[in-house]
Amino acid sequence: MTEFTPQDPDFEARTRASFARQTFMATLGAQMSAVRSGYVEIVMAYNDQLTQQHGYMHGVALAGIADSAAGYAAFTLMAPDESPLSVEYKVNMLRPGAGERFIARANVIKAGRTLSVVQANVFAVDADGNEKLLQTMLQTMIALAGKSDRVEFNPAGAS
Amino acid sequence: MTEFTPQDPDFEARTRASFARQTFMATLGAQMSAVRSGYVEIVMAYNDQLTQQHGYMHGVALAGIADSAAGYAAFTLMAPDESPLSVEYKVNMLRPGAGERFIARANVIKAGRTLSVVQANVFAVDADGNEKLLQTMLQTMIALAGKSDRVEFNPAGAS
Amino acid sequence: MTEFTPQDPDFEARTRASFARQTFMATLGAQMSAVRSGYVEIVMAYNDQLTQQHGYMHGVALAGIADSAAGYAAFTLMAPDESPLSVEYKVNMLRPGAGERFIARANVIKAGRTLSVVQANVFAVDADGNEKLLQTMLQTMIALAGKSDRVEFNPAGAS
Amino acid sequence: MTEFTPQDPDFEARTRASFARQTFMATLGAQMSAVRSGYVEIVMAYNDQLTQQHGYMHGVALAGIADSAAGYAAFTLMAPDESPLSVEYKVNMLRPGAGERFIARANVIKAGRTLSVVQANVFAVDADGNEKLLQTMLQTMIALAGKSDRVEFNPAGAS
Repeated sequence: MTEFTPQDPDFEARTRASFARQTFMATLGAQMSAVRSGYVEIVMAYNDQLTQQHGYMHGVALAGIADSAAGYAAFTLMAPDESPLSVEYKVNMLRPGAGERFIARANVIKAGRTLSVVQANVFAVDADGNEKLLQTMLQTMIALAGKSDRVEFNPAGAS
Repeated sequence: MTEFTPQDPDFEARTRASFARQTFMATLGAQMSAVRSGYVEIVMAYNDQLTQQHGYMHGVALAGIADSAAGYAAFTLMAPDESPLSVEYKVNMLRPGAGERFIARANVIKAGRTLSVVQANVFAVDADGNEKLLQTMLQTMIALAGKSDRVEFNPAGAS
Repeated sequence: MTEFTPQDPDFEARTRASFARQTFMATLGAQMSAVRSGYVEIVMAYNDQLTQQHGYMHGVALAGIADSAAGYAAFTLMAPDESPLSVEYKVNMLRPGAGERFIARANVIKAGRTLSVVQANVFAVDADGNEKLLQTMLQTMIALAGKSDRVEFNPAGAS
Repeated sequence: MTEFTPQDPDFEARTRASFARQTFMATLGAQMSAVRSGYVEIVMAYNDQLTQQHGYMHGVALAGIADSAAGYAAFTLMAPDESPLSVEYKVNMLRPGAGERFIARANVIKAGRTLSVVQANVFAVDADGNEKLLQTMLQTMIALAGKSDRVEFNPAGAS
């Protein structure tokens, strides 16, 4: 993995605080289990309120923790006055969402001044800790300069 | 739009029944508002339990209705003994999720024997019915032959 | 299609001049057949030096005219001192590259200050002018401000 | 990297022979430098007939060796009577195509009965053998059963 030097020594607290403001992650029951420079890990348990038609975890719920891990992996490397926005992602669903527990791991591949590219994988973990790769994602993030992530944007001004 | 002839005259009932089994869609508050041959529309309201850190609807929640609309648009053209599985999708997030109501519209671009490709857009709709494009998605679906969508897969046999 | 107002009234000449500097497009035998505000069309003929293993046009050669049409569609809306760079694209190959002539049509979906998102399709055209959709692409472009597209970048400074 | 057991002990000869039939690869000056089970490497030199408007190698030319490496990495694991077809790919362009030599490395992530997913990276290599990551790609391949890769398809029957 590439080594990255964070611009903000307090990146972990800033990253965890932003994640905690995402109500969607709470709805998914997702928790941020690890935060390092250019790397984030998010876990969630199987939940029968988040399934597709066959009882598997819905692919989008799993992509949700991948997207969030990827976005926050990029966020760890941003300056304190920058806010992250997801530009796009692509995800391949390799296996259905069977498992008790799921873990998304995201590594920054390229941290640019404006854009970052992040690679994320989602694994199912069984009771013995064995992992199976379920999804792989490539994501592009943009850093919005001069917009602290703590300030609410004005929805009326959204464009 | 391309015209498609469904293989199953009962496609609408079959599609709506499968959608109703996706608990994740209920968690999102999503409803299937239109089902036509090769076309599906899904709507959801703004929900403060589905937001990102700035209070906008989380991009993944919106991608969720796009993915579901896209998958079920492909499903309308499948045979009664075929079950759909999402292979991959790519989504561009053009604008943040500001709005009272959101609508995903999905059109099948290519319906193959095995694979289908679907294009979906997510719009925010304001009180006057004005729409703004928030996301655009390309999705690939596979038809699993001989696996009725009503039968539960065996999670233990998942690979 | 969305209507866009170009920032540069001379966008067509600027766009065609930049395209003419892409030696790869000459190698593909590609020509820019139409340039409008937010829209570009590129054509190429079948060429047995650009095939895959079965004699069809290679999917990447066709994606090449889609990528170029998409990038230049975004370029038509940029300011004279901005240079375009392709951030990423995703392409679905719907049918093999059989045909005498191929045409890529690209429409800007969202023209942002920094990023633009473009949708492009590649069609095969037969002798009677009938078209068949071969590929569909979503592309993200970034505008590099203060870098005229005419100036050579310094390859040594590339990062 | 995941270990894969090839179905065909002669996979290397079969893979190299198919690659040799891609005239587009010859036009790019691309050579298959390594073929292993689930892994392929393709190299090409800088060529001023394959550039974009600033003199860098065109992103699509580099994506061409990534796509080919990815497709053939999947092909190494297919049965002798199966032919590969690229379903879709997504590529992120991280840095411009500056360099003397370029190398694409592709690893199969998931080899399914019908679909395979492959991850490919393109690196620039300098005179001292130092590498810089230029592109990263995710690709989906389909195996067409009962269609030997040596037989020409009938372009007239293409759909």
